[in-house]
Amino acid sequence: MNGNKKKLQTPYYAVIFTSQRTKADNGYEKMSQAMVDLASNQQGFLGIESARDNDLGITVSFWESLEDIKKWKENSAHQVAQEKGKEEWYSDYKVRVCKVERDYSLE
Amino acid sequence: MNGNKKKLQTPYYAVIFTSQRTKADNGYEKMSQAMVDLASNQQGFLGIESARDNDLGITVSFWESLEDIKKWKENSAHQVAQEKGKEEWYSDYKVRVCKVERDYSLE
Repeated sequence: MNGNKKKLQTPYYAVIFTSQRTKADNGYEKMSQAMVDLASNQQGFLGIESARDNDLGITVSFWESLEDIKKWKENSAHQVAQEKGKEEWYSDYKVRVCKVERDYSLE
Repeated sequence: MNGNKKKLQTPYYAVIFTSQRTKADNGYEKMSQAMVDLASNQQGFLGIESARDNDLGITVSFWESLEDIKKWKENSAHQVAQEKGKEEWYSDYKVRVCKVERDYSLE
């Protein structure tokens, strides 16, 4: 599902980003897609899954290590997006950094 | 955001359930709400967040311990729902059991 077709070896890491959007659009969609493209090319990136219901969105990205997550958070273009997010796009958000201990699927 | 107003103490645990729905509705919405209500009353339940975009849905539930997650998975009414899910409602899904190592929010 969404770039996670291959079976990953646990443990790996997940960042759960839950957000509440403001009404301001102002470049959000474009930036959002640019960040997915940029993340996909980062060291240790394993996949991303995203869903939004009205204003509540959940995006989960998967990574090989905590160090990879730290580097992605510090990426300079991502930092610009994070600032715009705080100022304009999100009325609230929560970030959770997790270790995936096991996974299984329907098939 | 969605029942996670209070600041939780890490580590706690998360179950990331990503699913692809079939077209079959057949009681899905009703069962889905019943499962949220039932989970909310389980030992160790800390909150739930959910979003669906067309057919892709992400639901993340939060728990105090792996033992609480195991008990919820084994709950008999939940087992019935899981079977219906496999047979009718989901064309694909993935479950990831995670340890939340740290979290932070906008505010």
